[in-house]
Amino acid sequence: MSFIEVKPDSDFSIHNIPFGIISTAGKPTPRVATRIGDHAVDLSVLAEAGLFSDVQGLDKHLNVFSECFLNEFMSLSKPVWTATRKHIQKLLSASEATLRDNEALRQKAILPISSVKTHLPVNIGDYTDFYASKEHATNVGIMFRGKENALMPNWTHLPVGYHGRASSVVVSGTELKRPQGQRVIVKGEDPQYGPSLRMDCELEMAFFVGTGNKLGDPIIVQNAKDHMFGAVLLNDWSARDIQAWEYVPLGPFLGKNFGTTVSAWVVTMDALEPFLVQGPAQDPKPLPYLTEKGPSAYDINLEIKLKPSEGGKYSVISRSNLKYMYWSFAQQMAHHTVNGCNMRTGDLCGSGTISGPTEDSFGSMLELSWSGAKDIQLDGGITRKFLQDNDEMILAGWCEKDGIRVGFGECHGKILPANQ
Amino acid sequence: MSFIEVKPDSDFSIHNIPFGIISTAGKPTPRVATRIGDHAVDLSVLAEAGLFSDVQGLDKHLNVFSECFLNEFMSLSKPVWTATRKHIQKLLSASEATLRDNEALRQKAILPISSVKTHLPVNIGDYTDFYASKEHATNVGIMFRGKENALMPNWTHLPVGYHGRASSVVVSGTELKRPQGQRVIVKGEDPQYGPSLRMDCELEMAFFVGTGNKLGDPIIVQNAKDHMFGAVLLNDWSARDIQAWEYVPLGPFLGKNFGTTVSAWVVTMDALEPFLVQGPAQDPKPLPYLTEKGPSAYDINLEIKLKPSEGGKYSVISRSNLKYMYWSFAQQMAHHTVNGCNMRTGDLCGSGTISGPTEDSFGSMLELSWSGAKDIQLDGGITRKFLQDNDEMILAGWCEKDGIRVGFGECHGKILPANQ
Ligand SMILES: [Ca+2]
Ligand SMILES: [Ca+2]
Ligand SMILES: [Mg+2]
Ligand SMILES: [Mg+2]
Ligand code: NI
Repeated sequence: MSFIEVKPDSDFSIHNIPFGIISTAGKPTPRVATRIGDHAVDLSVLAEAGLFSDVQGLDKHLNVFSECFLNEFMSLSKPVWTATRKHIQKLLSASEATLRDNEALRQKAILPISSVKTHLPVNIGDYTDFYASKEHATNVGIMFRGKENALMPNWTHLPVGYHGRASSVVVSGTELKRPQGQRVIVKGEDPQYGPSLRMDCELEMAFFVGTGNKLGDPIIVQNAKDHMFGAVLLNDWSARDIQAWEYVPLGPFLGKNFGTTVSAWVVTMDALEPFLVQGPAQDPKPLPYLTEKGPSAYDINLEIKLKPSEGGKYSVISRSNLKYMYWSFAQQMAHHTVNGCNMRTGDLCGSGTISGPTEDSFGSMLELSWSGAKDIQLDGGITRKFLQDNDEMILAGWCEKDGIRVGFGECHGKILPANQ
Repeated sequence: MSFIEVKPDSDFSIHNIPFGIISTAGKPTPRVATRIGDHAVDLSVLAEAGLFSDVQGLDKHLNVFSECFLNEFMSLSKPVWTATRKHIQKLLSASEATLRDNEALRQKAILPISSVKTHLPVNIGDYTDFYASKEHATNVGIMFRGKENALMPNWTHLPVGYHGRASSVVVSGTELKRPQGQRVIVKGEDPQYGPSLRMDCELEMAFFVGTGNKLGDPIIVQNAKDHMFGAVLLNDWSARDIQAWEYVPLGPFLGKNFGTTVSAWVVTMDALEPFLVQGPAQDPKPLPYLTEKGPSAYDINLEIKLKPSEGGKYSVISRSNLKYMYWSFAQQMAHHTVNGCNMRTGDLCGSGTISGPTEDSFGSMLELSWSGAKDIQLDGGITRKFLQDNDEMILAGWCEKDGIRVGFGECHGKILPANQ
């Protein structure tokens, strides 16, 4: 229990303690904060007040909370992340007087969430997107290549992934213009230039690399989790018509790189640890470098919510769960580095669209509308196949167990009309 | 003519004036330099001595030459790059006394190239690799997918590209370990884990983005060249067996991201301007957003040289030219941003393998050995199909016209044995 009020349905209980970057009207310089309930806690203020001086490994780096990205903090490595989070939990607990009874410090450090602006939390070096949901890969494969070629022969042997665009990763709340480009309107005819007519979302989660590896030295699967700092929700906006025309043979490019949205608060792997579960059975048995001991999937409820431009409220259009993901985060990291590829503090790895086994758990509108063959029903009789201009979307994600809730807040985006 | 000696066959005449990052034993902090003949010129020293104080746009940012990457200088935009290069040409010319007659400053600023270490010149945000040579795309297409499916229908309509890995871009001279991973040894059987058995190079050039664009606002093709800072040689090392198994449907990943080597000296687009020529005829006519006025290909001679682990000297195994590239750098940049994707100072865009029309001009060993079907002949009766451990490779590139030579130096790499 914290001395700060936390509603029972809040994603940000004292069991969470995520990290993010905030600024305020009175102090526009971005800096590091955590969130609890409906308050942000400015960690740079707590550091200046000396409240972190006895956290081992952090004590000599108190300036990390005055940085405009989390990277410096993340580079301090797992023991420091763990100790810092525990220390913050202690500072915020009802039984601890240090902050609770320091009214002046509370005024300065504890800010109503409505008064803060959140920023992209991490300076992302490289962004990789995996393709680790078997249901999604199968669904999309059927639509793009037919049932016979849906799942490629490599898919069950390795976590397929590709490099994404780091520059266009934006924080929740950022509006994106509908992309323009080449797409084929009538099959077999030449492509035309114009705004995407099949704007879609992808429901994903992603982990941030905390500490990386040197070029040439792989991270082994047993150690992978200790290199991960935390996780966020990720919306891999996708222009399906642009993608379908461009993606052979080198993969998605302009159909994806106009924007990717991440949630603002990075939830640590420590906070997610209680929600570890056994992932899907893997057949064939993975090669030794991908073989894990113990559970490594996370039971995280996921939702896609859509608010149409016509107005009204958000409708839930999909309910999924990260535990459906076939290849675990640890397997993704081990695979990514098995060839010696170096990861750096701040690298982002997306899970790929997380589709569940049933039609109401698919993680993209492409799947939910089955490539536009059927309507997605919203409240008030409104329907969609793909996103219209000024539609808004929220991805949500949370874990619940034994009365404890740890969640991700929202990953929000709005699609603006294309340039004229 | 410079007061510094420049041999007639030097890539680094006074018409070049490239930019790079150096350090020396006596001063290990990396900083900005140019190169002329067999000397590096420490621009941070010249700046401190006040020799750039009258360069407009640079005068208020003289600290850019003390940075460990070129990015700060690059962000100052084209008029500053142009004025700075012209000013350096003047400072180094035989008729200009300022530096020529200042013996103390010359001693401090002008360093024998053998005494300097070169570093990765640019902090690369995103690295994109195009696939812009029709000959290469056709050759590889035949080998990977058969003659019928060699060139995909999209290829003649747009510059196909994909996102590469920025973290593993290294500077010329860096040794790379042979990557390990999954590859199929016997067609139709399950993949095995082990070192790549088909280690290859790709002869490429690349441009660095000098000034970028805001997310949502494309760079139009007519303006693209002004956003480019300069060019380098690029070796896109490729593990063909890993690539062949992993690349469907999302493109190359571990077959490429274990390392990419760039040459150390960034040759400005200004220096390359005299070597502009008409590129290949484009049929079908590109869409308006890709339509250029005037020549936009560069006549740059290219070579691949291989020194086998057995010893001996380098053999030239391919002679190609950047002018064979079907899609120009400007078209690549316009296409890359047409959907609103933002480019940032320091982004790197590779051309794709530059293969010419004849068998001795192919830009990869995959093509030169026709997927291992024939031997590549080296001096002394030694042969190769793919790279062996401890083989060394140099890419070279230079322009020549009217007695003027502007070149790129070398892009060198060595393949070390895989991890045990
Ligand atoms: Ca995706
Ligand atoms: Ca390439
Ligand atoms: Mg995206
Ligand atoms: Mg490479
Ligand atoms: Ni309050």
